[in-house]
Amino acid sequence: MPKQAKNPKDTYTIMTELVLPNDTNPLNNLMGGRLMHWMDIVSAIAAQKHCNRIVVTASVDNISFQHPIALGDVVTLEAKVTRAFSSSVEVHIVVKGENIPSGKKYPSNSAFFTFVAVDQSGRPIDVPELIPETEEEQELFDGALRRRQLRLVLGKRMKPEEATELKSIFKLDE
Amino acid sequence: MPKQAKNPKDTYTIMTELVLPNDTNPLNNLMGGRLMHWMDIVSAIAAQKHCNRIVVTASVDNISFQHPIALGDVVTLEAKVTRAFSSSVEVHIVVKGENIPSGKKYPSNSAFFTFVAVDQSGRPIDVPELIPETEEEQELFDGALRRRQLRLVLGKRMKPEEATELKSIFKLDE
Amino acid sequence: MPKQAKNPKDTYTIMTELVLPNDTNPLNNLMGGRLMHWMDIVSAIAAQKHCNRIVVTASVDNISFQHPIALGDVVTLEAKVTRAFSSSVEVHIVVKGENIPSGKKYPSNSAFFTFVAVDQSGRPIDVPELIPETEEEQELFDGALRRRQLRLVLGKRMKPEEATELKSIFKLDE
Amino acid sequence: MPKQAKNPKDTYTIMTELVLPNDTNPLNNLMGGRLMHWMDIVSAIAAQKHCNRIVVTASVDNISFQHPIALGDVVTLEAKVTRAFSSSVEVHIVVKGENIPSGKKYPSNSAFFTFVAVDQSGRPIDVPELIPETEEEQELFDGALRRRQLRLVLGKRMKPEEATELKSIFKLDE
Amino acid sequence: MPKQAKNPKDTYTIMTELVLPNDTNPLNNLMGGRLMHWMDIVSAIAAQKHCNRIVVTASVDNISFQHPIALGDVVTLEAKVTRAFSSSVEVHIVVKGENIPSGKKYPSNSAFFTFVAVDQSGRPIDVPELIPETEEEQELFDGALRRRQLRLVLGKRMKPEEATELKSIFKLDE
Amino acid sequence: MPKQAKNPKDTYTIMTELVLPNDTNPLNNLMGGRLMHWMDIVSAIAAQKHCNRIVVTASVDNISFQHPIALGDVVTLEAKVTRAFSSSVEVHIVVKGENIPSGKKYPSNSAFFTFVAVDQSGRPIDVPELIPETEEEQELFDGALRRRQLRLVLGKRMKPEEATELKSIFKLDE
Repeated sequence: MPKQAKNPKDTYTIMTELVLPNDTNPLNNLMGGRLMHWMDIVSAIAAQKHCNRIVVTASVDNISFQHPIALGDVVTLEAKVTRAFSSSVEVHIVVKGENIPSGKKYPSNSAFFTFVAVDQSGRPIDVPELIPETEEEQELFDGALRRRQLRLVLGKRMKPEEATELKSIFKLDE
Repeated sequence: MPKQAKNPKDTYTIMTELVLPNDTNPLNNLMGGRLMHWMDIVSAIAAQKHCNRIVVTASVDNISFQHPIALGDVVTLEAKVTRAFSSSVEVHIVVKGENIPSGKKYPSNSAFFTFVAVDQSGRPIDVPELIPETEEEQELFDGALRRRQLRLVLGKRMKPEEATELKSIFKLDE
Repeated sequence: MPKQAKNPKDTYTIMTELVLPNDTNPLNNLMGGRLMHWMDIVSAIAAQKHCNRIVVTASVDNISFQHPIALGDVVTLEAKVTRAFSSSVEVHIVVKGENIPSGKKYPSNSAFFTFVAVDQSGRPIDVPELIPETEEEQELFDGALRRRQLRLVLGKRMKPEEATELKSIFKLDE
Repeated sequence: MPKQAKNPKDTYTIMTELVLPNDTNPLNNLMGGRLMHWMDIVSAIAAQKHCNRIVVTASVDNISFQHPIALGDVVTLEAKVTRAFSSSVEVHIVVKGENIPSGKKYPSNSAFFTFVAVDQSGRPIDVPELIPETEEEQELFDGALRRRQLRLVLGKRMKPEEATELKSIFKLDE
Repeated sequence: MPKQAKNPKDTYTIMTELVLPNDTNPLNNLMGGRLMHWMDIVSAIAAQKHCNRIVVTASVDNISFQHPIALGDVVTLEAKVTRAFSSSVEVHIVVKGENIPSGKKYPSNSAFFTFVAVDQSGRPIDVPELIPETEEEQELFDGALRRRQLRLVLGKRMKPEEATELKSIFKLDE
Repeated sequence: MPKQAKNPKDTYTIMTELVLPNDTNPLNNLMGGRLMHWMDIVSAIAAQKHCNRIVVTASVDNISFQHPIALGDVVTLEAKVTRAFSSSVEVHIVVKGENIPSGKKYPSNSAFFTFVAVDQSGRPIDVPELIPETEEEQELFDGALRRRQLRLVLGKRMKPEEATELKSIFKLDE
């Protein structure tokens, strides 16, 4: 049964969290591990909206934490599926902080998580196609192939010389 | 004041966790986000042992989740600093699962987290040198430079053509 | 210093939560108390966005729980300020459940929470005006006066015969 | 099978909680949402003692938060069933704060929660009768009918003109 | 400043908890560690009511877990100070389980915790006298001396031959 | 089926925890109850490694809390089985604190927990023999019999005059 294709906006998920004392380090800033926990939940929900299946986290791409988020600040996490592969999807997550008394918003970080859709026994299962609509969605869709090759090379499941899409990152052909 | 150099074994940290119901997905397996939360804590403690300072998570390298860890299983996380840079350290974390009734142990995943040592105002501060002792520690030490360049390139803070160490991964010179 | 008036959309806040085992009763449905905890957080954030101040929960109007939300389902809470009074705001929260494998969404409940804006000593402080824009926002704005009188009457801080706005609910003049 | 009638004292439940850092807002006072979570648990236990059945939260009446409860203070919640209807019970909860170093006790708030008793499939099921004993219990028993009509009117499941018991609140007949 | 003596009933504290999934072992029974966590909180509150001071846990006597408490059951913990020493108090805690659908109550265990009252710098400080009133309170008061000697002997802070009160336990004089 | 004997080192388990705000009392020190919760988990894991079975906490020996552990400090818990009886094992837990910025480590406390191995119905089941290897393990093995008699006498399941091993503690024969 071929499933119906979806658009990124069908998978769009927003999560809002308040930074509480137990989430912070001795400088009173949000700990990276708690943030990744939230990133995993919001992106798993986005992935589920695409697949209508149980999904399990398969991989997390390099994350760089730019801006500390302070105790009492509000964290907004937005997730959207960027591309579907045979039984997996890539999700893009954008995290922002907001200090509400001052009304100041600031970017925190962004990341790509990959999920595999599975049946009740945990076996991978086919997922619907994703069709990008906006220009930004098209760019994320195109980049997904490149990021996938990087994951495979780093995971030693693809030889670097076969990772043709990586050339645009590393300018292998210059 | 030059601080005293340390060895990886001075930073070695083990954490053991039991997978409880709230940590699991509908397949009764540990959620990736909870595991990353634990990985962040164990590696932050290892980094602190090296720096004797407050540390903040700076980046997380690509993580690939290989083997699901079941409800009731025991998770063991081992962390050790691999290399110190001017104000940051890279930590290697190895995660294993164990089903105790059957006595079966299995690898789950491994990852590299990077931490910056900061003073009370959150400003980066110098850290001691790390001197590898065993052959495995030497290999992790050597690879740290390569992984650092990859982080910088992916974070758009280094041009790919300057990432001389990456050649060994992507065979740029072949 | 008169603060700048705001529109309901400036305060709009979405929170998404996954129902985990510890949130559920023996029928595996979300417990009402956990849901109210989330409703308080999302509406406090909406109130803060309006006031740019610390806010404290002043009252919660009658809540009726219509539809159980099952373990593993996703809960979406949307909050928006409906009206500002001298030092308080009323927030409207709409809660929906979603069973993602089946793609079925269902309404759960809705409620009005009231928050007081306070200074660092906990003393009430003036808040900006709220100007409704859409027709629905205008209706919620108009009804806020009526709900406020009901709160005051139920809290024995207003005599029923002075609650002129309540007539439309109880048809006192028929 | 007619079940045995019970008295309010058979359902009496006390819960004591210590306000911890994660329960508090930036003023170091207990957040309303956490308190409502506790109120739901204590009143659900009281309702269960009456029904000897699984109970689910059906509704929460207007709650007004009078007195902030500080970090480190002790919260005492007392719950007692006030009246049984065909398959539901109303529970009265009284919340007090206590600053133990100074020995000062203070009222915080009170509320009425309603629960429906259900069988294993979640279908409503008959509950035993409740027979008030003290004068205060009789008053709460009598008022329960009035509060029930208010709930039904506010929930749009009863026409105001049929809510004969509400006259005593709103003096409809004056 | 001599403080006013208190009676055990002034310190009486009841805590009620619901056993949730994360509190249980693979047999769906409450884990001993979670129960001890609750026992520490309820007895610390009782000790604080006596001392009107911050108190810190000094020791826990032998605890024997008799009867498992099942998921969904209600746990009732009752605590009362049994005797005051110069800067410490002994608290007796009695734990009961209750399966509410069946109305079956069962004893779980009982224990003695000892707390030291401290000032803001953490230094021990004098506590008021405790005067037992009922016969049972008198027995607990009398036994407190014996239990204290056992603690001191086990902690190697008293020589066994000086523990004159222990004779009644071990019949040293027979 | 006789199971294979094990050595204490086969059961060795290390747990590392970071003291977070919600774990602390008003002096910002780790609460005894939270520490006992962790002690129960680490020792249950050690017991499970010996038995390869579900284990339930049977008893906890007298614990004396010596040295407060501060907010932000790291807690290390080490557990090892000391002796196996027919269907139960005794586990020794040693707890240390560490203030990482200053590099200062300090002993916190130690304790003995006893666990019973059970089958899926919760019935006690035979456990393998434990064979001590080091001198320290032999001492803990020898002392286990004495501690067991003390537990039985305190639990009123053995008459003091039959507790022959207790003589060495209380010098009954002098």
